[in-house]
Amino acid sequence: MITSETLSALDREDPLAAFREEFDLPEGTIYLDGNSLGPLPRRTLARLIDVTREEWGQSLIKSWNDYGWMALPQRIGDKIAPVIGAAPGEVIAADSTSVNLFKLLAAACALRPGRKVILTEQGNFPTDIYIAEGLVSVLGPGYEVRAVAKEDIVQSITDEIAVVALTHVDYRTGEMLDMTAVTAAAHAAGALMLWDLSHSAGAVPVDLNGAGADFAVGCGYKYLNGGPGAPAFLFVAADLQADARQPLSGWMGHASPFDFEASYRPADGIAHHLAGTPAILGLVALEEGVDLFNEADAADIRHKSTLMTECFIALVEQECPDHGFTLASPRDAAQRGSQVCFRHDQGYAIIQALIARGVVGDFRSPDILRFGCAPLYLRYQDLWNAAVHLRRVMDTAAWDTPEFKTKAAVT
Amino acid sequence: MITSETLSALDREDPLAAFREEFDLPEGTIYLDGNSLGPLPRRTLARLIDVTREEWGQSLIKSWNDYGWMALPQRIGDKIAPVIGAAPGEVIAADSTSVNLFKLLAAACALRPGRKVILTEQGNFPTDIYIAEGLVSVLGPGYEVRAVAKEDIVQSITDEIAVVALTHVDYRTGEMLDMTAVTAAAHAAGALMLWDLSHSAGAVPVDLNGAGADFAVGCGYKYLNGGPGAPAFLFVAADLQADARQPLSGWMGHASPFDFEASYRPADGIAHHLAGTPAILGLVALEEGVDLFNEADAADIRHKSTLMTECFIALVEQECPDHGFTLASPRDAAQRGSQVCFRHDQGYAIIQALIARGVVGDFRSPDILRFGCAPLYLRYQDLWNAAVHLRRVMDTAAWDTPEFKTKAAVT
Repeated sequence: MITSETLSALDREDPLAAFREEFDLPEGTIYLDGNSLGPLPRRTLARLIDVTREEWGQSLIKSWNDYGWMALPQRIGDKIAPVIGAAPGEVIAADSTSVNLFKLLAAACALRPGRKVILTEQGNFPTDIYIAEGLVSVLGPGYEVRAVAKEDIVQSITDEIAVVALTHVDYRTGEMLDMTAVTAAAHAAGALMLWDLSHSAGAVPVDLNGAGADFAVGCGYKYLNGGPGAPAFLFVAADLQADARQPLSGWMGHASPFDFEASYRPADGIAHHLAGTPAILGLVALEEGVDLFNEADAADIRHKSTLMTECFIALVEQECPDHGFTLASPRDAAQRGSQVCFRHDQGYAIIQALIARGVVGDFRSPDILRFGCAPLYLRYQDLWNAAVHLRRVMDTAAWDTPEFKTKAAVT
Repeated sequence: MITSETLSALDREDPLAAFREEFDLPEGTIYLDGNSLGPLPRRTLARLIDVTREEWGQSLIKSWNDYGWMALPQRIGDKIAPVIGAAPGEVIAADSTSVNLFKLLAAACALRPGRKVILTEQGNFPTDIYIAEGLVSVLGPGYEVRAVAKEDIVQSITDEIAVVALTHVDYRTGEMLDMTAVTAAAHAAGALMLWDLSHSAGAVPVDLNGAGADFAVGCGYKYLNGGPGAPAFLFVAADLQADARQPLSGWMGHASPFDFEASYRPADGIAHHLAGTPAILGLVALEEGVDLFNEADAADIRHKSTLMTECFIALVEQECPDHGFTLASPRDAAQRGSQVCFRHDQGYAIIQALIARGVVGDFRSPDILRFGCAPLYLRYQDLWNAAVHLRRVMDTAAWDTPEFKTKAAVT
C-alpha cells in the first residue's frame, strides 16, 4: 500500500529535488506532459531577454561572431552529446526533427546504393514514417518504406534494407527498444541504423556510441525543455562523417560559407549537416534547457524516472482498480521510458477532466492516456495528488460531460 | 551639390519618420546592414517576454490551441502575403530559406517530370545553387543544375528546363530583375518560375500574383526584421496548390496531424508545405517585424528607398570622387533594390574602418561594399553622416592598418 507519506519520504531523499527550483511552473498544476512540451527553465527567460536586447538589439550583425551565434549549433550539440552517449563533434542542434530525419535517411540511402528499403515499424511516430515516404518519392523507382510490426523488426532486416529507422522510446506506450541488440542486428545484415531519440534524450540513458549507432535525431522541446518548437538535434557517428552526404546542402553546411563559392563543397565533420542560417532565439533557449542536463547526474535521473513510473503504475492500480484502465506501458522498468500510459475507452474525456483539475497529461489516439514523469521538476508527491485526482474523476464520472467528450485539436 | 541641409529637409517631410521610434537602435551607430540582419523592433522584446513567461511558462502545452501557436505559420504567412503580392492562403512562415527552397524546387521538378534541368544564374546567392545541387543529387541521373550568366537567362529557358530559380534582388549588387518579364519567359517555354525574395520582401514592391509567379521563398531576418535566423517564408500560387507536392512531408503538413495516420496524406492548401513542429519563439519575433510592414504604406517605402539609394550614390560620388569607388548597383533606380554597392579593391578594410566608426555596412567577396538603406528606421541624415565618415576613412587612409585588413569570418 502506497501512501502520501511513502512519497513524501522519497521527495525528502531525492538528490534531484533542488532542480525543481530551476523551473517556472504554474501554481496549482501537476505537469505530466513534459514529454510533449517541457516547462520553462527560469534561466531561459533571462537569457532570451539578454540575447534579444543586448546581442541582437545592440550588437546587431556583429553578434554572429562576437557572441558566438555562428557556433551555437555545434556548441549545443556538444552539450547534448553526453546526454545521448555521443562524442564532441558528433551532434548539432538545427532545424526540426522531421527535417533532420530527411537529411540522415537520405545520407543513409546514399551510403547503401544497392539497397532500396527503409525499414521502420508501424507504430513509429507518424512524422518518421511520413518523412521516409517523402524521401522515397524523390529517390525514385524501387525505393520503398517498409513498416512492420514491432515484434517483426529484427527478422525483417534483410539485405534489401539500406537503413533501419526506429524510435527508441515509443511515443504512445513508453516502450523502450534494446538499442544495442537492434543496432547489432542491422549491422549484421549490412544495414545502417538510425534512432529517433525524441522521447529518450533527457529521460532515459542513451549510449549511441556504446550501441554502435550510425545516425540519430531527436527533439529539443520535450524532456530537454528547449521551448515550443525548439531546434532539434542530429547525430552522425564520427566514422561515417567523411562519407555521409545529405542533400539539404545549404550554405551553413559548406566548407567555407562566406567565400560564396560557385558550387557546394561539404564542410568537414558534423557541420556538413547544417542547412540554413541558425535560428538563434530558439537555439539559446534550447541551450539553457540542455545545460540543466549537464548539471544533473544521469544515474540520478534514471533512478528517479524508474521509481516515479513504478510508483505511478502502482498508484493508479491501487486507487482506481475497477475503472477499466489497462496498463499500456511495459511493466518491466528496464523496457520503459519515462512515461506511464494506460488505455481506457474514455481516455480522451478522462484526460480533459484531469486537465480541468490541473493535472496535465495527454491523450493519444485511439485510447491512450499518457503521463510523463520528468525527473528534474516533478515531485513524488505530485504523483500521489495526480492519482487522487484520477480516482475522483472516475468515482464521480466527472469525465462524462459533453464538454470533456468533444474532441478539439490536441498536441 | 547635396548638403546636410538637403537631407534634413527630406527627413522633416518623411511620412515614415515615426517608424524609427519602433526600433531599438544602438546609440552612435548608423546601421546600413539591415539587409543582412534587421534591427530589433521594440515590440518584439515585449512579445518574446510575454510568450515565454505566460504562454510557454504558465499555459504550457495548452498554448498550442489557446494562444494559436499551431496557426502561426499561416497567420504570419497571411501577413507577409500583401508585402509580396500574394493572396491569403498562399504563404507560410516556416523553416529556413534553404529548406524551403528544397521543398519548392522538388515540387517544381515533380510537376515537370519530362524536364530535368533547374536553371539559375551564376551570381545567385550561393545557398540557392547549393540546395539545387543537393536536390539534383537525390533526383538521380539526368538531373542537372544549369547556372548561366544573368544576361543569358531568358535565352537559356529551353524545353529542358523544369524550373527557373532566381533571386529577385541580387545580394551583392542590388540589381533587381524584371519579375514579370522573366516569369513570362519561363512560362512561354513551359517551365515553372521560382523567386527568392530574400533581398526584396520589405524593401521593394513585389507582385508575385501580378507577375504570375509559381513559387517563391524569402528570408525573415533581413528587411522584415524578424530576428537572427528567423523563420523564412514560402509562397505557392493558389492554382498550383492542389498538385504541388514537396518531399519534406512531416506531420505538420499532413491533412490530419493528430490522427496519427499510418501514411502521409497531404493537407489541403499551403499547410502541406509545413514539415516539423513550428518554431514558436522565432515565429512570434518574426510576426512583430512583419506587422510593421502591414502598418506602413508600401508606396512610401518604395519612394523613400529609391530616394535614399539615389542620395547615397550621389553622396559617395560627391564626397569621395577620387578614391577608386565604382558603383556596382544599377544607376537606374527602377532596376535597383534597397541597397547601394560599390566595388573597391580595399573594400574589406574600408568596411572594417567604417564599422569602427559606427557606420555598419558589410563586405561581400571579392570587392563589394554593401550599404543597405532600410526605409523604416534610417534617416536621410544618416546617409550624410555615413558619407562623411567614408570620406574621412579614405582621406586619412584609416583603412590601411593590419587590424582592418585581416579577414575574419563575416556574415
